[in-house]
Amino acid sequence: MNVIQPGLAGTGPAGTVPLDLLARYRAVRSRTEALAAPLSPEDQVVQSMPDASPTKWHRAHTTWFFETFLLRPYLPGYRPVREEYAFLFNSYYEAAGPRHARPRRGMLTRPSCEEIAGYRAAVDEAMEALLRDLPAEAAELVVLGLQHEEQHQELLLTDILHALSLNPLRPACDPGWREPAASAPVTMLEGPAGPVEVGHDGRGFAFDNETPRHATWLAPYRIASGLVTNGEWLAFMEDGGYGDPLLWMSDGWAARQAEGWEAPLHWESRDGAWTEFGPGGLRPLDPARPVRHVSWYEADAFARWAGRRLPTEGEWEAAAALPGFRDAEGLAWQWTGSAYRPYPGFRPWAGAVGEYNGKFMVNQMVLRGGSAATPPGHARASYRNFFPPGARWQFSGLRLAEDAA
Amino acid sequence: MNVIQPGLAGTGPAGTVPLDLLARYRAVRSRTEALAAPLSPEDQVVQSMPDASPTKWHRAHTTWFFETFLLRPYLPGYRPVREEYAFLFNSYYEAAGPRHARPRRGMLTRPSCEEIAGYRAAVDEAMEALLRDLPAEAAELVVLGLQHEEQHQELLLTDILHALSLNPLRPACDPGWREPAASAPVTMLEGPAGPVEVGHDGRGFAFDNETPRHATWLAPYRIASGLVTNGEWLAFMEDGGYGDPLLWMSDGWAARQAEGWEAPLHWESRDGAWTEFGPGGLRPLDPARPVRHVSWYEADAFARWAGRRLPTEGEWEAAAALPGFRDAEGLAWQWTGSAYRPYPGFRPWAGAVGEYNGKFMVNQMVLRGGSAATPPGHARASYRNFFPPGARWQFSGLRLAEDAA
Amino acid sequence: MNVIQPGLAGTGPAGTVPLDLLARYRAVRSRTEALAAPLSPEDQVVQSMPDASPTKWHRAHTTWFFETFLLRPYLPGYRPVREEYAFLFNSYYEAAGPRHARPRRGMLTRPSCEEIAGYRAAVDEAMEALLRDLPAEAAELVVLGLQHEEQHQELLLTDILHALSLNPLRPACDPGWREPAASAPVTMLEGPAGPVEVGHDGRGFAFDNETPRHATWLAPYRIASGLVTNGEWLAFMEDGGYGDPLLWMSDGWAARQAEGWEAPLHWESRDGAWTEFGPGGLRPLDPARPVRHVSWYEADAFARWAGRRLPTEGEWEAAAALPGFRDAEGLAWQWTGSAYRPYPGFRPWAGAVGEYNGKFMVNQMVLRGGSAATPPGHARASYRNFFPPGARWQFSGLRLAEDAA
Amino acid sequence: MNVIQPGLAGTGPAGTVPLDLLARYRAVRSRTEALAAPLSPEDQVVQSMPDASPTKWHRAHTTWFFETFLLRPYLPGYRPVREEYAFLFNSYYEAAGPRHARPRRGMLTRPSCEEIAGYRAAVDEAMEALLRDLPAEAAELVVLGLQHEEQHQELLLTDILHALSLNPLRPACDPGWREPAASAPVTMLEGPAGPVEVGHDGRGFAFDNETPRHATWLAPYRIASGLVTNGEWLAFMEDGGYGDPLLWMSDGWAARQAEGWEAPLHWESRDGAWTEFGPGGLRPLDPARPVRHVSWYEADAFARWAGRRLPTEGEWEAAAALPGFRDAEGLAWQWTGSAYRPYPGFRPWAGAVGEYNGKFMVNQMVLRGGSAATPPGHARASYRNFFPPGARWQFSGLRLAEDAA
Repeated sequence: MNVIQPGLAGTGPAGTVPLDLLARYRAVRSRTEALAAPLSPEDQVVQSMPDASPTKWHRAHTTWFFETFLLRPYLPGYRPVREEYAFLFNSYYEAAGPRHARPRRGMLTRPSCEEIAGYRAAVDEAMEALLRDLPAEAAELVVLGLQHEEQHQELLLTDILHALSLNPLRPACDPGWREPAASAPVTMLEGPAGPVEVGHDGRGFAFDNETPRHATWLAPYRIASGLVTNGEWLAFMEDGGYGDPLLWMSDGWAARQAEGWEAPLHWESRDGAWTEFGPGGLRPLDPARPVRHVSWYEADAFARWAGRRLPTEGEWEAAAALPGFRDAEGLAWQWTGSAYRPYPGFRPWAGAVGEYNGKFMVNQMVLRGGSAATPPGHARASYRNFFPPGARWQFSGLRLAEDAA
Repeated sequence: MNVIQPGLAGTGPAGTVPLDLLARYRAVRSRTEALAAPLSPEDQVVQSMPDASPTKWHRAHTTWFFETFLLRPYLPGYRPVREEYAFLFNSYYEAAGPRHARPRRGMLTRPSCEEIAGYRAAVDEAMEALLRDLPAEAAELVVLGLQHEEQHQELLLTDILHALSLNPLRPACDPGWREPAASAPVTMLEGPAGPVEVGHDGRGFAFDNETPRHATWLAPYRIASGLVTNGEWLAFMEDGGYGDPLLWMSDGWAARQAEGWEAPLHWESRDGAWTEFGPGGLRPLDPARPVRHVSWYEADAFARWAGRRLPTEGEWEAAAALPGFRDAEGLAWQWTGSAYRPYPGFRPWAGAVGEYNGKFMVNQMVLRGGSAATPPGHARASYRNFFPPGARWQFSGLRLAEDAA
Repeated sequence: MNVIQPGLAGTGPAGTVPLDLLARYRAVRSRTEALAAPLSPEDQVVQSMPDASPTKWHRAHTTWFFETFLLRPYLPGYRPVREEYAFLFNSYYEAAGPRHARPRRGMLTRPSCEEIAGYRAAVDEAMEALLRDLPAEAAELVVLGLQHEEQHQELLLTDILHALSLNPLRPACDPGWREPAASAPVTMLEGPAGPVEVGHDGRGFAFDNETPRHATWLAPYRIASGLVTNGEWLAFMEDGGYGDPLLWMSDGWAARQAEGWEAPLHWESRDGAWTEFGPGGLRPLDPARPVRHVSWYEADAFARWAGRRLPTEGEWEAAAALPGFRDAEGLAWQWTGSAYRPYPGFRPWAGAVGEYNGKFMVNQMVLRGGSAATPPGHARASYRNFFPPGARWQFSGLRLAEDAA
Repeated sequence: MNVIQPGLAGTGPAGTVPLDLLARYRAVRSRTEALAAPLSPEDQVVQSMPDASPTKWHRAHTTWFFETFLLRPYLPGYRPVREEYAFLFNSYYEAAGPRHARPRRGMLTRPSCEEIAGYRAAVDEAMEALLRDLPAEAAELVVLGLQHEEQHQELLLTDILHALSLNPLRPACDPGWREPAASAPVTMLEGPAGPVEVGHDGRGFAFDNETPRHATWLAPYRIASGLVTNGEWLAFMEDGGYGDPLLWMSDGWAARQAEGWEAPLHWESRDGAWTEFGPGGLRPLDPARPVRHVSWYEADAFARWAGRRLPTEGEWEAAAALPGFRDAEGLAWQWTGSAYRPYPGFRPWAGAVGEYNGKFMVNQMVLRGGSAATPPGHARASYRNFFPPGARWQFSGLRLAEDAA
């Protein structure tokens, strides 16, 4: 059984097993465990909202992915660690059978963290066996499994950050966390206009939603060399940005009213000074660093207040190679003005993994770049991240653009 | 005070009052009254869901528009009919002051239908006075007010249809309603590829969201000459289309489950045969006529089932001038694959009417064409209608497309 | 078919048709129409919350009661006015077949007020025929139907008052409404202690929930001669009564927080002065008149603040005959400290009308007395009114009591 | 500071420290730890619904009670273990300051189980010091703290049972759990009629809600010698009891429809046979044992189906001393027909513990007896347990009664 079509990934000509796959497998898998290491069993079980998942669940689900899409079809004689896990740790793959309801993931006190560790070890052992004798057609699925696990590493961090933010003790989920350096002053760069090619060029791995590479037409525009900062956001707040409906989309204003937004998520005013709750705990807000944990609605309102707009994802991608374009990655994902829809000619992968991206292509906005929580090397210029416009718990910020009429 | 910028409408060179504006004013205003005429006072007061408005409210709100944006600023000495109406009949214009909450419009048993009729007559009388001596810069606003009222004429019909559909007696809101003729067989037309110009060309009136005219790039595609029919929809249903999650967007499947969708809205099975509830009441379903009252989610799932897809709005507009392209208007609005976002270089109108379209440009999908409920002459090829993907109470159908790789 | 057991009502020996039944029928029926007369068709169709019903629906449902329980079984050859009405106007009688969902009563724009008037006239005509030759066993059902209609007369008024209170114009539902005279100063009366008899004594009509008459044991207590006034309520408010959780039941405090209660329902502060919205419209608050439109939660908190408590329903009933006990009726229903449960030995009426009272005997608190909206002659000392503890839209006030240890 | 009034408990003349208080303290405290011992840290943190609390929270809250009401006021020089715990582990005492929101207890991954164990140990050490030199006026509060902890022992078990019931793996929370012996056949006993005394007689400890002892009047009745069994409940189910609205209270029927009740909570049909999920895991249903995990609504409907009714709490208490009255305790709490309201002359305890019972005296029904989860020696004949009529997660069953006219 071949769950995805030939040519899924750009890891090399189909049939060539990458030499370093085992090393990459080990590196990715152990990075997940390193992220979970500072977290107690209690930390790892809670689900703070339906959109978030428990740490333990992330650890198990990424393991289930390898078991389901690699070990079961490709490792002769493989026996699943526990049959029930197919139900418990399937996220949203309808083709892979029934599954535990997402909002109830936090009820799964069993299997314990220890059992999950055992599950991971057992699957790792079997994967090592498989990787030593990997059928050529399965290589791309291994790569996909690793990319998938990297995506969950970021979610693991943002989800536990959200959970711990609800604890009045404000505990740090990663006491040794170091914030990336602050941004340099921003200039406006001229973006390329007219027909441009965007989408993945086929070199290296890409998700199906980045393909096919295709032409799009860009009107003249300028784009900021860097991201909006906390200090600029404070100016927006002080100017009444959260109180002026004319700056907001109608749905955004309704969300702001309903949720009582007055500042980015994880900002708290303590004794008259703003603090930011991050992986390292509660720290004074640094005005020079890029703002994050803002929804698309807030980003859009801020841009309007600033007399600018969000770039489209095409503009962002076309500008990413410009000299002077900084901080694409490493600080915060950047909301764009583009709704998440398929590229012209888009085909989801064949088989069960075809549900990976395609079925979410509505009611979401595209983010580009990469954040401080994104695993190094994971993102790229054609990468399409996406979240609903009201989502705030990701490391989401913004970069401004404007028409150059 | 000039609430919208010069050049808003294409009714002629700024400053030239169109000769027929008074005639048009009378025609549009009386068409609204004709639509309401078969409805009792009781019919006219109810609001069947937050998205819908009472008939009476439509009649008053369209009147408020003329009073607020034309009579108050332009007719010397004008005294509003009743000050409270500014609060009661403002729809969503933040710049025009506070307003009655949308979901409570159905609580407004007073003013009565009779008082609303009086309000309309008083405003009409004042408008006639104004139109006889119209300042040049106000002409475009009059046109906008008429276009606005035409939009509400369609909503008036779809809203009352929804309200009456909840009545077990299934009364007809327009007993004399005649359904448009059925569709002819459909062929696939080759659409224009490469860079094309879309958006309004400046000849005649357009809403701000249709502008500016701009280039877009189209990959090769084919588009259907006509709309999907009830008969084709029945085939989708009989093939289990409403029960196969792999055909649906994730959000669409969730909506289907939550709402229990098994057929288009207003379809009912009676004694084993399908009927459709329309303005003329409950009638046998005609398989040859175009399907309507489907959500974007359903249209998208249908297209996937059919091995095709929805056209983008650019594809639709570029194809609309092709020979053989039929039924653009007069049957049903056609869902496209495009999220409703601003065109490159979009600028909302200046002043309060700038809230008309721009602040809704998220979480909505674009529909093109025009329906059996659209006032004759109202729509055009560049017209951008928009609704959330779960909306079903409009006359919304679909036209298929496919890649021509 | 005999839907209720012999001996239901005390209108005379079973088999004796009361001489004045036709006159009473006419009086009650026309009083309903008089209450609805000032209301427009638009007023009569709206339903402002699930607990309330449209005026038109009250008019129809009370008519349905006579058609269903009298005309169908007892008038030979009677043909129902319209078969669908059995579905539309059944309130909650499971034994009488399926029914329209309560929260959707406001969607019934048809039948129109005019048709309902016709329905009432047709049933009245048939009832007159029946009453001229009434089978003895049906007499009690006629009385029940009239008592039932009187109960709906009060609901009609409180429901439309609630609906009109949501209209920013604050229209009066009965412009000629006269408030009853204010209360006299209150003294504390010694109530009877030890075993007392309570419940209906069988003389005249009573609902099943007032029976059987039975012994209860009362500890020594004192009860107020009159009701708590608006002025006393203002003192409670000024003393922070709405802000002190220690005065409230836990559920009451939660309701207060969730609903934002700061004063009785229908009180509004205008230009620094309190007004009360009543059937006569918005009027200055009179401190000497009894407070009304308070929930049980508020009444209970007030009593605690005052160092007193609510009387039990037994205490209330036993005290009602005391010299000095004033304002039992005519001003406001009086919340008691008693949960609404069956009396010892309670038996619901046989047949469909057995659902009248019994199935509501949980989650409700008993009110005693009668209000300014209660039809004259309707209530009596043994009458048990009941509403959930959070209900505020009735004319509900309170009378205090205390232990006399 | 004396938070409760003299004479609260019946542990002896005020001022006399019971000799065995230290031993009782140790026994109760260690029993809690024994209940938690089989549960993993993950088990102990989850909150499966707003009404339930995490195991860890129960362990901490009961400790907070001693710290707040004993150590802080009475142990000189006592320094709280951690100031934040006052906020985190206050349940509902408004007078004891602000507190963490109940529905968010499951978010408290920190402090960890280990830290809670340390909290318990530190408080136990300080309590031992206090108990060696206990001020006379504090003795009753110690007893109250132990009674309070025993109540939480039962909740700990029912809460974790509910949480684990949501896990598809159906893990046992106490693998060594032994079900009590099944019931003997039931006879109907004649209860005492006329005036009877009920309420606590002052010998030994009692909660304030059991006082004062007072007279009540009972009409002649019979009461079952034992509880309704699973087998009898199956007969109710097979006879369509869950499908006949005429058997149910209106609110009960609505709850049944909304929740989809078809059997008691924790019953599951597996391969055509009924099983019951209990502390020992999933086991075959024993028809001879008493039914439990039914709501008041279900118990009330069952009684009506059986041609009987629930006893009032007065009837239950008066009958508890009859020869032949069995299974008062040890099997299941028994729903009564009485709403939970204060006894005549009821006075809550003075001080903060006055919030213990009094503020819940609405919207709840009384249960009498004691269950398999009740700590031995905790309950007594005058004990008033109470839950809302829809609650099912307690060990709640029923005993029938009938009028003896």
